[in-house]
Amino acid sequence: MRDESDGAEQIGSTDLLPSRRSPAAASRSEFDFINKVRHRAHQTNPALNTSSSSLIPHPSSLSLGIGDDAAVTRARRGHDTLITTDLLVEDIDFRRDWMPPQMLGHKALAVSLSDIAAMGARPRWALLSVGVPEEVWRGRFVDEFYKGFFALADECGVTLIGGDVSRTTNRVVIDSIVLGEAKRNRAVLRSGASPGDRIFVTGALGGSAAGLQLLEGGARLPKNAVRRTRFSATEQLMLRHLRPSARLAWGQFLGEKRLATAMIDLSDGLSSDLAHLCRESGVGANIDASRIPIDPLIERRGEQVDDVLSSHAGDAFTLALGGGEDYELLFTVSPKNAARVPDEIDGVAATYIGDVTDEKGRVLLIAGRRRRTLKSSGFTHFKRARRK
Amino acid sequence: MRDESDGAEQIGSTDLLPSRRSPAAASRSEFDFINKVRHRAHQTNPALNTSSSSLIPHPSSLSLGIGDDAAVTRARRGHDTLITTDLLVEDIDFRRDWMPPQMLGHKALAVSLSDIAAMGARPRWALLSVGVPEEVWRGRFVDEFYKGFFALADECGVTLIGGDVSRTTNRVVIDSIVLGEAKRNRAVLRSGASPGDRIFVTGALGGSAAGLQLLEGGARLPKNAVRRTRFSATEQLMLRHLRPSARLAWGQFLGEKRLATAMIDLSDGLSSDLAHLCRESGVGANIDASRIPIDPLIERRGEQVDDVLSSHAGDAFTLALGGGEDYELLFTVSPKNAARVPDEIDGVAATYIGDVTDEKGRVLLIAGRRRRTLKSSGFTHFKRARRK
Repeated sequence: MRDESDGAEQIGSTDLLPSRRSPAAASRSEFDFINKVRHRAHQTNPALNTSSSSLIPHPSSLSLGIGDDAAVTRARRGHDTLITTDLLVEDIDFRRDWMPPQMLGHKALAVSLSDIAAMGARPRWALLSVGVPEEVWRGRFVDEFYKGFFALADECGVTLIGGDVSRTTNRVVIDSIVLGEAKRNRAVLRSGASPGDRIFVTGALGGSAAGLQLLEGGARLPKNAVRRTRFSATEQLMLRHLRPSARLAWGQFLGEKRLATAMIDLSDGLSSDLAHLCRESGVGANIDASRIPIDPLIERRGEQVDDVLSSHAGDAFTLALGGGEDYELLFTVSPKNAARVPDEIDGVAATYIGDVTDEKGRVLLIAGRRRRTLKSSGFTHFKRARRK
Repeated sequence: MRDESDGAEQIGSTDLLPSRRSPAAASRSEFDFINKVRHRAHQTNPALNTSSSSLIPHPSSLSLGIGDDAAVTRARRGHDTLITTDLLVEDIDFRRDWMPPQMLGHKALAVSLSDIAAMGARPRWALLSVGVPEEVWRGRFVDEFYKGFFALADECGVTLIGGDVSRTTNRVVIDSIVLGEAKRNRAVLRSGASPGDRIFVTGALGGSAAGLQLLEGGARLPKNAVRRTRFSATEQLMLRHLRPSARLAWGQFLGEKRLATAMIDLSDGLSSDLAHLCRESGVGANIDASRIPIDPLIERRGEQVDDVLSSHAGDAFTLALGGGEDYELLFTVSPKNAARVPDEIDGVAATYIGDVTDEKGRVLLIAGRRRRTLKSSGFTHFKRARRK
C-alpha cells in the first residue's frame, strides 16, 4: 500500500479520491491534493475534525465529510433538506482565458447557492465534482479554483463534504452540488403564485449579459483582478458575469418570514424565468416596463421606456429582459404582505415590477397604455460565440 | 414566453431545464425532454404527482422533485441522509462505442449506489447532471441513457429528483448523485475497523478488469446485448465491466444488523481499497491469498496461489488484487459477530479473506508460510488505452 501513514488524523468522507483513474505517480499527488482539500474543509467546520469511528454528536447538522464512500448529513429537527446541482462546462458555460481560476471557483458555488436562495433556504453543505485535463491538473488551476470556492463557502457558512475528481481529455468540467435547509414545508416553490400577487425582483438586471457582451467583444479584466478592490464600470459589468453574487440574505428573509408565495432565481433572464414561474403556478403576469430595474452600469444612450415595446428594442432593455445569469431573485408576494417587503437588505434593493394575473401562461409587458406579449428569450450565452 | 401551456400538470423540481444554454429551437426540444424525464420520474414515485404549491405530506421522505430551483427531501425520523457523487467522463471512464447507452445509464447509477451500499445505507433519491455534444443530443443517446438509468432506479426504489443538462463541445460527461438513508449513527464508515476484526469480501474479484482487458483487446458485446439474456463467458466478463451491480442487499443487511465495523466498495481494486480502509481505521491487515475469491469466469491457466507472491504474479491474481470496478463490498466484522455473517445474500457470497492487525498501514499477503507486503496498485482503467 502507499505509505501515507503520516500521523495525520483521518476522518470519514466521500470518494474525492480518484486513484482508480490515475497512474501511480499522479495518484500520489492527487492523494495529497485531496488531503489538502479535506483539511481545508475542516477549517470551516471543526466538527469534522475527528478520527473517531462514531458519528459526531453535533446537535443535528453535518455528521461526516470528505473521506468515506459517501458524506453523512443530518437535517436539523423540523427541517427539510434541499439539493441542487449545476453543471459548468468549459467553452459552453465559461472560458478559462476570461477569468482567474479563483473566480471560477466562486462562480461554481454561487450559481448553486442562488438556487438554494430561490427556495428561501439556507445553504449548508456542498459537494464538488471536478474534471480537468492532465496538463491543467499539473498547473496552479485546481489550487486556485478551490481557493475561490472556499473563500465564498466560508463567507456563507457552507462546508465542503465531498465530491469527485477525474481527468478529462481536453476541457474542464465542474458539477457544483449544494445542500440547504429550510423549515419543514417552508421551502418557496415556483408554483405558489396566485392572481393578484405582486411581482418583485432584487437588485438590477442586464449587467451580467452586458459584461458577457464586453468579454465577447474582447474586453478583459486586469491581470490582478483577484486582488483589486476598485474597478471601472466596464470591469464591474464583466465582474457581474464572472463573479456573480447569490442573494442569500434576501432568499432566507423571504422564506423565513413566509413573505414570498413563489420564487425563482434569474439564471435564464427575466422573460424566461418569469415564464417558468407563471407556468409552474398556472398564472400570467403583467410587467410594468418603466419599473424594470436596469443595471445603472449599462449605458442607455437615450433609450426610452417605450423602446422596449418595439421589435428593435434598445440594448439596455433587451439585456434586462433577455439577459441571463444576473442571479437576482424574482418573487411574488400576496397584496396584504406587499408592504412588509423591505426596500433593501444588505444594500440590495427589491423592486415591485408588476402583478400576477389569472391569464394562465400570458406575460404582458406594459408601457403606459401600450402592451405586448413578452416572449421568453432565454439568453444563450456562449452559443453565438461558439458558432462564430 | 414559450407557449407550452399544454395543460400538463406542473410540479416543483430542480433546474433540469437548461434553456439558458440553448438556442430557441433546441431549447424547445430540451424542454420536452425534461418534461418527459419529469413524468417518467413520477411513475416511480406517485407522491411527486401533484400540482399543488404546498409540499407533499408523504410521511417523511421525498417532498418535491424535478421542476424547481432545488429538490426538497425529508429524511425519515431518526435517520441520517447520505450523499455521494461520481463523475464519469467519456474516454476516461467509459467509451461510447463499447456499450449501448442503456448500459451507461445503468452504470452511472450503479457506481453511486455502490457508495451508498458501502455505507450500509439504503438509496432513496438521485440527481443526474448530463453534458452532451450537440450531435449526440440530436440522436437517440440521451433517451436510451435515461432508459437504462430508470430501469435500475425502479429496481432499487430510487427516485430521480433533479439534475442539470448542458451541452459540451465534444464529449459526454455525467455526474451521478445519489442520496441514501441510514438509521441515525448507523452509517458504516471506513474508519471503524479494529485489530482482530475479520475481513470479508462479497462476490468474486477481477472480472471487471478482465472484461476491460477484453474490450481493450478489441472484443465487443453483440449488438443486441441489451435485450439478450444469455451470454458467453467472454461477454459476461465484459458485462462485469460495462454493467456492474451494486451490492445493495449486502450493504443494507450489514448496516441494519450492525455487523460491519468498517466497509468500502471495491472501485479501485482490493489492494488499494483495503489500503484506504486500513489508513482510515489506523490498522493493518493480513490477507490469506488462498481465500481471495477470483472470478471463476477468468481463465487461470494453471496458476498456483503461490504465484501471487512472485513479482510476475499470474494474471488472475493480478486482476483480483489490482483490478478496479468490481463494486463488491469489502467489510470487517468483530470476531464475536463473524459467525453471524451469512454465506450468501440473494445468491451473492461473502468470503472471509483475512484479519485486521494492529500494524498500522501494513497490509500483508500470506500464502502458507510466505508473505509479502501488498502494494496498493489501483487499476488505472483507460490511462493505458488513452496513451497508446
